Amino acid sequence: MELLRKTLEGITDVDRKAAQQAQKRLDSLTKPPGSLGVLEEIAVQLAAIQGKVIPVLGQKVVMVMAGDHGVVEEGVSAFPQEVTLQMVINFLNHGAAINVLSNQAGARVVVTDVGIKGLPIEHPELNIRKVRPGTRNMVKEAAMTEEEAVAALEVGIELVNGEINKGATIVATGEMGIGNTTPSAAILACMTGKDLERITGRGTGVDDQGLIRKRAAINKALEINRPDAAKPLDVLRKVGGLEIAALTGVILGAAARKVPVVVDGFISTTAALVAHKLHHYCQYYMIASHLSQEPGHRILLEEIGLRPTLQLDLRLGEGTGAVLAFNLIEASVKIISEMATFEEAGVSNKD
Amino acid sequence: MELLRKTLEGITDVDRKAAQQAQKRLDSLTKPPGSLGVLEEIAVQLAAIQGKVIPVLGQKVVMVMAGDHGVVEEGVSAFPQEVTLQMVINFLNHGAAINVLSNQAGARVVVTDVGIKGLPIEHPELNIRKVRPGTRNMVKEAAMTEEEAVAALEVGIELVNGEINKGATIVATGEMGIGNTTPSAAILACMTGKDLERITGRGTGVDDQGLIRKRAAINKALEINRPDAAKPLDVLRKVGGLEIAALTGVILGAAARKVPVVVDGFISTTAALVAHKLHHYCQYYMIASHLSQEPGHRILLEEIGLRPTLQLDLRLGEGTGAVLAFNLIEASVKIISEMATFEEAGVSNKD
Repeated sequence: MELLRKTLEGITDVDRKAAQQAQKRLDSLTKPPGSLGVLEEIAVQLAAIQGKVIPVLGQKVVMVMAGDHGVVEEGVSAFPQEVTLQMVINFLNHGAAINVLSNQAGARVVVTDVGIKGLPIEHPELNIRKVRPGTRNMVKEAAMTEEEAVAALEVGIELVNGEINKGATIVATGEMGIGNTTPSAAILACMTGKDLERITGRGTGVDDQGLIRKRAAINKALEINRPDAAKPLDVLRKVGGLEIAALTGVILGAAARKVPVVVDGFISTTAALVAHKLHHYCQYYMIASHLSQEPGHRILLEEIGLRPTLQLDLRLGEGTGAVLAFNLIEASVKIISEMATFEEAGVSNKD
Repeated sequence: MELLRKTLEGITDVDRKAAQQAQKRLDSLTKPPGSLGVLEEIAVQLAAIQGKVIPVLGQKVVMVMAGDHGVVEEGVSAFPQEVTLQMVINFLNHGAAINVLSNQAGARVVVTDVGIKGLPIEHPELNIRKVRPGTRNMVKEAAMTEEEAVAALEVGIELVNGEINKGATIVATGEMGIGNTTPSAAILACMTGKDLERITGRGTGVDDQGLIRKRAAINKALEINRPDAAKPLDVLRKVGGLEIAALTGVILGAAARKVPVVVDGFISTTAALVAHKLHHYCQYYMIASHLSQEPGHRILLEEIGLRPTLQLDLRLGEGTGAVLAFNLIEASVKIISEMATFEEAGVSNKD
């Protein structure tokens, strides 16, 4: 609890003066003012985060948190539970989409077992920080105790701090956990009061019967656990997941260190909503990446006040959308640092 | 006319068998089927274009066509006409947004003067293929003769052929021409019959009075020239532009060589609409990049049947949005060629 408390205390506002100066510089470059749209907004946001008129990006990492879910026994997922473990091995063997896309983006993949069920994996590239082997079935009892939820959060804080200490300048969120759209939808439903019909989707592809089971499980979990919507930690522990808690920690930890966080899809954005509710300055450190096909994602992004830049109908997770957005974020930095001004280029400005 | 005729004859259907096999391979990779959305669609499209189950991308170019517009004397632009020339010099000095973004994307910028007004520019990197020093004022007479329009089209065909001969495997469209959202909106209005209020935007940023002048100029140009909506070349020559014609040529030329074309914003997509009307197979060779802030852009994309992947509120042109999309297109190729299959990775497939 101590690390979480200190981290929350360490999150402060961004540098609004640097943001203003960055906008001024952008307006002096050889293009109609504002014509690079979101690229300009991201450059200004990075200036505000870093407190530098011309922001700088170096090492990139994607923090992939993996955990299992007791609620899978309710038949809420199209894939069997052992796929969490199998896919983590696939990550470590560099065979998954997140590996391919991170390789292209020049980003390092940091994989952490925060709660996988099954045989232990031994691999030099895996962080083993298992809080427990999967959550409890939230339809029957709380998914985690408060101690477990805080422990998972602090795994995220500690590991992102370690990566920043090693030189990471921008962090993406990623996850693996069969069944994890179910706790994500439960958190979203509880925190926003939105209708389950609107926010529960097919995840990795459950059929109609599976979708009915999924909604029933969420309803029952909320009924039995009665999480207090005003207390983010209560919601997170009762109907959340270990990897979701760890990602909330990653976001809090990065914000406290003034490092931008690129938020991936539905599950990652659920973690972002919890972080946002724990500290409202967090949103200034977040960059949304894509709009997922999962129906609740748009509602989550609106709730935090984030706007996605990619519309690719992704629904994979792992951090894939966030890593694809690295290129756009780097483009915005190159625009503000490398373009010629009207004066330098001898170009006439607007009438 | 001979080169145009031959090029149109050379445009054939894509390889639908390669597309099917590519989809089959994508479904065998360690992810839920279809979960990489548009990245999968692009991989399948590239397979169909290249006739290879696993497509390959090498050299990338952006063809930036520059020309001036007689209609600028009607006060339709926020920037003075000499900015076309000044910005082309900026391109050649590598100071513009298109240079910065192409440099990031590893793409070569090919700049061509197909009709700039003013002093001639001498620069080793500039293709001088001036058909005439700017179009005529379309409010008073046809912007081009048929010979001029065809000459500009054939400049595009010839130059893209040259780049493909030198090794280009993917081509982006870009343009520079102060005033060129006006002829673009005129072409769109004529070809689709859509209301001018809906399709005419502020371009580089004209004020309310400028917007009124712009709509009036388009109305008058259509009234005086009476282009035949069923004849794409008639529309192009009467209310089009030299750089728009050249980009239509680039698209036709690339399609005839089975090379994918990434289409930029409003002006580029107008050229794509003309190409699409000249030969309906063209659309299979086009990849849309972003959705511009210019209101007519969405209508243009729908008319051709293209779907943008980036939502960045860009309204700069030059090819900037298309070059930003190169990264996503390369990502789709890496996905289909580098990811592990379920079998290779020992991951359980869907129940």
